[in-house]
Amino acid sequence: MEKNVREYLYKHIPISRALGIDAEVATKERVVLFAPFANNINHKMTVFGGSLHAVCTLACWSLLYLNLQELKVQIVITKSEIDYLAPVSCDFRASCFMPDESAWLRFLNAVQSKGRGRIKLTATIGHAVHYSATFAAIRIE
Amino acid sequence: MEKNVREYLYKHIPISRALGIDAEVATKERVVLFAPFANNINHKMTVFGGSLHAVCTLACWSLLYLNLQELKVQIVITKSEIDYLAPVSCDFRASCFMPDESAWLRFLNAVQSKGRGRIKLTATIGHAVHYSATFAAIRIE
Repeated sequence: MEKNVREYLYKHIPISRALGIDAEVATKERVVLFAPFANNINHKMTVFGGSLHAVCTLACWSLLYLNLQELKVQIVITKSEIDYLAPVSCDFRASCFMPDESAWLRFLNAVQSKGRGRIKLTATIGHAVHYSATFAAIRIE
Repeated sequence: MEKNVREYLYKHIPISRALGIDAEVATKERVVLFAPFANNINHKMTVFGGSLHAVCTLACWSLLYLNLQELKVQIVITKSEIDYLAPVSCDFRASCFMPDESAWLRFLNAVQSKGRGRIKLTATIGHAVHYSATFAAIRIE
């Protein structure tokens, strides 16, 4: 599954290759994306904030992709917030976990009954970054 | 100035080259960064949300860089929020303007008197994206 996710991202979202992403964990419960320091440095020799945001976005998107593959839906990000709590000065990993079950079931139910639903996911990069984003899933037929 | 900003970004934040950024306007009043569709597409053939965020971040950062060059400060992003209001399906431009003068003067005064200050900047990509971020400037000596 990990190799599939990486290949999917490289093929369909080419900037993910420039970010140097690798999928270390890619299950329906959890996605962990790795990214190397060298690809993502900035002028202060820390990781560029835009890269941290992009890898978190891809981790959350991948988790939704893995969970919604059987449904015919398009996944769209509608908003995000990120807190940069500490600088990152090395290779890093963005982790995204499934939200609590009741929120997930409400989301799935909305997609199935109304053709669209929204879900808020969070991702973290150690204690350095806290990210949250709202995604919409829209049934396409 | 435009060429200088692009070269600075390419040299110090190498992912900006992968994003394909060009600095169309780079003055102390306004920064407009261009980015091509091809570098930033996603699986839906729209622009990847992480790219939109990254180019907005670079536009705001560049505006601060141009205004604070004479001061010895380090510029750090502390948080950001982005609303994706509509998909972007073509080359795009992120524009960042100076905040209102009173906020700017309070910020400058804090940097000069206390050695650090915070400022909130906004950037837009047409009507499709609204981005805001808080940056800290910290005097280094």
